[in-house]
Formats: sequence, structure tokens, C-alpha cells
Amino acid sequence: MTERVNVLVCGSFSEEERARITAVASDATLEFLDTDKDVEGRVATADGVAGHVSPEALAKAERLRWVHSWAAGPDRDLYPEMLASPVTLTSSKGNGGIPLAEQAMLLMMMLNRNAMRWVDAQRDNRWERFTHPELAGLTCGIIGLGYSGADLAKKAKAFHMNVLGTRRQVDRPVPFVDQLYRREELPALLEASDFVVVTAPRTPETIGMLGEAEFRAMKPTAYYVNISRGGIADDAALLRALQEGWIAGAGIDAHGVEPLPSDSPFWTAPNTIITPHNGATTPGTRRRGIEIFAENLRRFQAGEPMLNIVDKQAGY
Amino acid sequence: MTERVNVLVCGSFSEEERARITAVASDATLEFLDTDKDVEGRVATADGVAGHVSPEALAKAERLRWVHSWAAGPDRDLYPEMLASPVTLTSSKGNGGIPLAEQAMLLMMMLNRNAMRWVDAQRDNRWERFTHPELAGLTCGIIGLGYSGADLAKKAKAFHMNVLGTRRQVDRPVPFVDQLYRREELPALLEASDFVVVTAPRTPETIGMLGEAEFRAMKPTAYYVNISRGGIADDAALLRALQEGWIAGAGIDAHGVEPLPSDSPFWTAPNTIITPHNGATTPGTRRRGIEIFAENLRRFQAGEPMLNIVDKQAGY
Repeated sequence: MTERVNVLVCGSFSEEERARITAVASDATLEFLDTDKDVEGRVATADGVAGHVSPEALAKAERLRWVHSWAAGPDRDLYPEMLASPVTLTSSKGNGGIPLAEQAMLLMMMLNRNAMRWVDAQRDNRWERFTHPELAGLTCGIIGLGYSGADLAKKAKAFHMNVLGTRRQVDRPVPFVDQLYRREELPALLEASDFVVVTAPRTPETIGMLGEAEFRAMKPTAYYVNISRGGIADDAALLRALQEGWIAGAGIDAHGVEPLPSDSPFWTAPNTIITPHNGATTPGTRRRGIEIFAENLRRFQAGEPMLNIVDKQAGY
Repeated sequence: MTERVNVLVCGSFSEEERARITAVASDATLEFLDTDKDVEGRVATADGVAGHVSPEALAKAERLRWVHSWAAGPDRDLYPEMLASPVTLTSSKGNGGIPLAEQAMLLMMMLNRNAMRWVDAQRDNRWERFTHPELAGLTCGIIGLGYSGADLAKKAKAFHMNVLGTRRQVDRPVPFVDQLYRREELPALLEASDFVVVTAPRTPETIGMLGEAEFRAMKPTAYYVNISRGGIADDAALLRALQEGWIAGAGIDAHGVEPLPSDSPFWTAPNTIITPHNGATTPGTRRRGIEIFAENLRRFQAGEPMLNIVDKQAGY
């Protein structure tokens, strides 16, 4: 018989969600905690934690073997002590890929058609027709072809766009992607794209990958869209790109500083749509996230290899 | 040798567009007219007209054999005298299918995610996250599977939606459509759909097809979207559906009265996005429209069967 394991589960759950998780815990004792802050006081005897384990909490863990992040991108968990520890870190990667791709398409369409002009006209009861482009025939350059990037490629192709994408491995074709670029070939993707969409995780490799040179390499008619993580673009360079017209505009869901302060110049940057890191905040994301955790909880008890194990050095 | 034909070409064209049309006219004498109003004075000796021929103009035509409408839906041209005449009417059908499907997706996404809440928050420099649905898993019911409807089905499928559609012939499957309904099965489609999207042409069969019973058949959580023609929905019933919450909201590009008067209650109807019959107003639509006309002009001269011949009785 398997030894019972102790797992702390942080977060606010409905009865149904709690039952779904509990149903899997045949060989685990679960303790539900309201917030990550409660972990530190309870972590000493825990074998696993679903939630964020702070450096202080990690220091108090005596037999912790597993941390599961409720986030798709576990960049917040990758502090030096966690990198150095043998604890297995798993993520919720894949929970929000679909709604993030939807958010990217929404932002692309609103920018492409200047939807804000319709919004303004409606508020004035004003019938104002204008000529606008269509996405069909334009080029969508996707930085990072993980869950959201791959799903975005499928959607962009259904919109009759040319689809470019970056990937570490470019030896195998990716469905719906016309042309793959290595990370070092990024300038070629930037020059060719009408929309540059960041879907990559925030990792040591991607932090700051878009700076002045990269925004200047984009077409002046092109739009920047970010639905993954802030910090991948250098915010100062992005702001200048928008304010000085190096690019045509932006749709930004993920920001360098969150929440975006009320005095941030991004709120009023030209042709820029700001959403509050909200693209994947859907019941579907939550449901898929709980399924990923439940499956990992089952595997943890059974000693099977878990899903979404984070490569701590690569950062995702 | 083919006899030269006289063709009036109405509209405002760039040099390039004019050259493109003229290049085809090897056996035609073209006369470019600024507006449809000029047709009446020049139609007597015309064999063909590209533009709208009014009843008054039609009465003065002595040898007119062909009228080409710059519109995809030629409902405006189908007045009784035109119905009774032997003149061949062709349309620009297919010129705007792609951008109309884009407009439908834009409206669906804005409604689904409550994008107006983000717009409002941005204007107040306010970080306001909220839970919203995703299109994935929802059902898109498409009324009319012509160019725009078929392209919308492709897009909705890439958004992981269930796709339903109405069609006159349901014997053959339509790509990307999960379930086909006959027109008389419309209630079943309305009951099952989270988005009801009208892409059908305005014809004797479709005028008024959505009235009180149809809007009441829709789910209270469902949205109505129209990107083709006004008059297919009964505006009074639609307005009550919105104001009394029979349905969740609407995205309306095509209106019963156009331009929508500034005192129309639709501007401020709950959860309703109004665009000014503007979904297909793109350079691409114009380019495709000119290509369709140029090809028909070539065929007219050569005596070949033309593209997009309108079934005057069916109305499209």
C-alpha cells in the first residue's frame, strides 16, 4: 500500500471543485488553505503544495517533494532557492492557451479595424463609416509556439493570414505555421510581420528580448500584441515605439508592472488597447487548471511521472 | 469580329482601377460616370451598366442586356420593373465574405468578453480584472451559408466552437459546419445557439424571418449578430428582445434603416455594439469587386456565361 502523502491546496474553491480534487486523493491527506500566505505555517510536514511557496516557506519545508503552480507560467516560483532545491515544480501550462489565443485575436481585430472609432461613434449616436483593413493577407508573427501560440496560429490561418513563428526547434513543421524562425532569426520575423504577438513564457532567455532595436525593426504599420508576460519587452523602448510612431500601435494584456499603475503612460499611449492581464480569466481556464492538478495529484500518489514538469533552468 | 458593346461604369475609381477595367475592354466602349444618377441620361444606347439602374433609368434603356451591381447583395436592384425585364443582373457576391466574417468574429469576441468594460476601465486608467467566458465550447448558429457564412464557419471552428447553420440544401455537408438545418428548422438552431449570426442575403424569403417568436426562442444568454442586411430581423421585436432581456445582447452591422438615425434606440440598447454597415468596407473588398466586374466584362464581350448571375425570383 502506498504511504499517505500530505498535500496543501491553496486557493478559494467551490464545493464542486473541492469535491473534484478530493475525489482523487485516495492516498493523500489534503489540507485546503485560503491563501499562499498560509503555506509557511503548514509546510513543515507537507509532501506537496499546490500554490505559491515563498522562499521563507521553502526554508521551513522538511520533506517537500512537489510544488504545483496554478499559473501556466511559473516564473514567479523560480527564485534562487527553488532553482537550487530538488523539489519538483509543475505548472498549469495549457490551462489558458485557448482563451489567450482568443484575446490575441480580439486585440488584433480591434486594432486592425480601429474598433475604438466605432465605439466612440456609437457613444455619440453617430453613423460614421470608414475604410479599414482586413486581417486576411496580413502576416502574423508569433513569438513562442506553446499552447497559446499554436492555437493562435490555427486561428490566424482561419483568418487567411500568413503565419510566422519562433521556436527553439525548427526541424519539425508546426501545424498552421508557414515559416519557422529560430530565436536568433527574430529580426527577420519582426521585419516581415504586420502583427508581432508575444506568447512566449517569461524566462531568462526571453526577458528583455524586445528592445529598441527590435521595435525599430518592425514595420511602422505593424502592431505589437502581448498576451503572455510582461518583461519580455523593455517597457521604456515599447513606450517610445508607441509614442514616436516606430510602430502603429499595441494590444497589451501582460505588462512589465502589474497592476499597471494609474499614472502609467501606457493607459494613454497612441493606438494602444490595454487589458488587465485578463485574457485567460475564464471558467474554462479554471476548470482545465483543476483537471491538470487533479491528474498530477493522482500521479504524485502513484509515483508516476507528472505532467508539466518545469525545466527550472529553461524557466518553463 | 465581336461587335463593340457600350458599357457605363459608375463610381469613383483610382487611375489604377480604371486602367485595370479598361485593360479588359478590348471589344467594349466604356463610359465612366461619377454616380448612379448619371445613368439615366446615358443609358439609352448602353448594352451594359455597372452600377445601380433606377426604375426611371431602366425605362429609358433601349438595348440594355446587363446590369452589374457593385453590391454583394443586389436587393436594391430587384424592384418590380427589373424583375419583369429580361436584363441579366449580376452581383459582386463574394467580394466581402471574408471581411464580413471577420466583423462577425470581432463582434462575437467583444460581446463574449465584455470588451466594453476594458474600454471603460482604460479610459479611467483603471486596472479592473474580471472573469469572462471564452468562445471555445460555445455554439455559433449561422443563418445562411454563403461566402461570409461559410468563412465564418471556418473561423468559428478554429475557435473551437460548435457550428450550426441553415441552408436551403442540407443534403451535402458543408465544411466546418457540425449540423445543418433547413430554414423550417430554424427554431431548433435558435434554441441551441449561444450566438445567432445572420449572414443571409435580404430576399423575399428572409425578410422578417426573425420576429418576436424567434428572439424568444433564443437563450437568454445568447447574442444576436447581423453582418449582412437589415430587415431580416424585425427591428421592433429585436429592440424589445434587447431592452427586455430576452437575449443577452447584440452586435449589429446591418440595420433596418440606414444610416441609423441619431435618435434610434439601438445606439443605446443594452449590451449592444453598433457598427455602421461597415464590416466589408476594406480595400480587399474593393479589389475583389473590381476583379469580379472585370471578369464579367470580359465574359460579356465574349458572350460567355457570367459570374454571379442573380436569380431574380430568389433574390440573390
